[in-house]
Amino acid sequence: MIDVRGFAAKSATTSLVPFTFQRREPGEHDVRIEILYSGVCHSDLHQAKGDWGNSVFPMVPGHEIVGRVVSVGSAVKKFKVGDFAGVGCMVDSCRTCESCKQDLEQYCLTHTSFTYNGTEQDKTTPTQGGYSTEIVTEERFVVKISEKLDLKATAPLLCAGITTYSPLRHWKVGKGQKVGVIGLGGLGHMGVKFAKALGAHVTMITTSASKGEDAKRLGADAVLLSTDADAMAAQGASFDFLLNTVPVSHDINPYTNLLKLDGTMVLVGALTPLDGVVGGSLMLPRRTIAGSAIGGMAETQEMMDFCAEHNIVSDIEVVDMASINETYVRLAKNDVRYRFVIDMATMPA
Amino acid sequence: MIDVRGFAAKSATTSLVPFTFQRREPGEHDVRIEILYSGVCHSDLHQAKGDWGNSVFPMVPGHEIVGRVVSVGSAVKKFKVGDFAGVGCMVDSCRTCESCKQDLEQYCLTHTSFTYNGTEQDKTTPTQGGYSTEIVTEERFVVKISEKLDLKATAPLLCAGITTYSPLRHWKVGKGQKVGVIGLGGLGHMGVKFAKALGAHVTMITTSASKGEDAKRLGADAVLLSTDADAMAAQGASFDFLLNTVPVSHDINPYTNLLKLDGTMVLVGALTPLDGVVGGSLMLPRRTIAGSAIGGMAETQEMMDFCAEHNIVSDIEVVDMASINETYVRLAKNDVRYRFVIDMATMPA
Repeated sequence: MIDVRGFAAKSATTSLVPFTFQRREPGEHDVRIEILYSGVCHSDLHQAKGDWGNSVFPMVPGHEIVGRVVSVGSAVKKFKVGDFAGVGCMVDSCRTCESCKQDLEQYCLTHTSFTYNGTEQDKTTPTQGGYSTEIVTEERFVVKISEKLDLKATAPLLCAGITTYSPLRHWKVGKGQKVGVIGLGGLGHMGVKFAKALGAHVTMITTSASKGEDAKRLGADAVLLSTDADAMAAQGASFDFLLNTVPVSHDINPYTNLLKLDGTMVLVGALTPLDGVVGGSLMLPRRTIAGSAIGGMAETQEMMDFCAEHNIVSDIEVVDMASINETYVRLAKNDVRYRFVIDMATMPA
Repeated sequence: MIDVRGFAAKSATTSLVPFTFQRREPGEHDVRIEILYSGVCHSDLHQAKGDWGNSVFPMVPGHEIVGRVVSVGSAVKKFKVGDFAGVGCMVDSCRTCESCKQDLEQYCLTHTSFTYNGTEQDKTTPTQGGYSTEIVTEERFVVKISEKLDLKATAPLLCAGITTYSPLRHWKVGKGQKVGVIGLGGLGHMGVKFAKALGAHVTMITTSASKGEDAKRLGADAVLLSTDADAMAAQGASFDFLLNTVPVSHDINPYTNLLKLDGTMVLVGALTPLDGVVGGSLMLPRRTIAGSAIGGMAETQEMMDFCAEHNIVSDIEVVDMASINETYVRLAKNDVRYRFVIDMATMPA
């Protein structure tokens, strides 16, 4: 077994504290990675605080993991020692079901092993995440990261990146399309960058004029203030695609009405009940609402390669491991543009 | 002008009464039709009673109109005197916008002239519907009906038929697919017939065991009682496509959970707000909810030809024109299997 230092939540009501645990010895298909940076996703906070009612403790959060390969199993083909590599929201799946066969491991019909607060394929052994010094993962669930990119700023691509890239690709967003990204946070800022790189005309839809300005810096062509009823009405039925990154329950009808005939709004933020789904608004004209969760491993690699090609990374703020509890306080206030990344070199000895 | 006898609602609170009015003299592109049968759609009742807040009186309802061509304009190509012909929910549109150019006149970006309780393209002249002896309509908005079909039972195809046929075709329902039709009424019973004829495995999803049995008579392969939580759970994530014909606000989450990865539920009944749209249910696995309204004229003709080929008509009960108020009382109680059709030969002199 491999000794690993990390930070864990011991219960939903306590702060995260130093925590030493063990990873499995690498098998022949495994990649052993020294973690250099770990992104801080809003879902880390939700799970550490037990907000979703599914938390198991002790919990080492973190599913935006990047680092350097320190050893590979004998059957590993894609990686060699020294490569930059990343692990995202999943570390395993059944690999044999209809979803896995389509490279959609996140929709595994048997059991997706999420990176933390989940279990291995035995459905018993807890998984532990990226706020730690090392991880051992089967190569199917590890992606290669180009040396051309700023490594620390690639960490959020493993969750915020793929969560926005996958629906843009699945619904074939591209040139000639008018795309709106709703909400500018960790997900939204990646949505703007990807939609722009895919050739779409991108509108940031936000309640905040200052965020609108920042979205233009990130590549948005236009800004629509959702609080301006006249502006919203003027752009009614004009969007081909909307990427809705709002992370909480909200009234979606004002956004639905922005979609043109056969337009689609994809929800990637809010897991909870939504108001304002009005049958008539979906019928005249014909409109679609859908959901999407992260992306499969092949698509995650595709995204990482797309990022290298287009020089896309996340906008981040680097924090120390020991400051994680203060970081969570700031995250809860949305005081971040646009993702915190823990520098794992700051892990206490 | 052409003198026409009909029945009209004079206000939202009165019964329908005999009403004489005038249609335009046929122009060179017009078809003049002697109305032989007119279906009674639930939306007739809603609009006659002012339920949607958009009613203009006097109103002659009826948008499931079939009859015989009695004259054609000099430029008419598709029809000759004596043909069976039908008029559905629309009688005109701008014909030049992006939607009209795609043969999707129901989504006209300028102005769809609905058959009654609407206005002509001048946005001023009221339109009047099928509870009447004759109609004059531009040939683009008239469909041919095969002599092989029982004419009176084709009337509901013009609304209930195309409303269910169009989404089944748009979302490419066919062989090898598991399809659920939710609700067995005027729309649902056509949904079962069409989905079956298109080659799908069809499950009737209903609250009523007796309706379930009747759905089998109509062609359904299986029945799922939506009140049986165990049965609903057992079929979770198993349907490729759901046609939701429930005409009122309801909790859609139990149905969403029946959809498999990349499955779609299309709403064709409820125009009003819906509960139970849960972001997480749409994300894991990736699922879609959409709406659809009737169908374009080319597709309506395609449906009518499909019906002739597959010998599909509606299950109807023929009623007299003078009994329309009693018919509305029965309709409000859902006391119909599955559509009332007025025999226009019973129109009082």
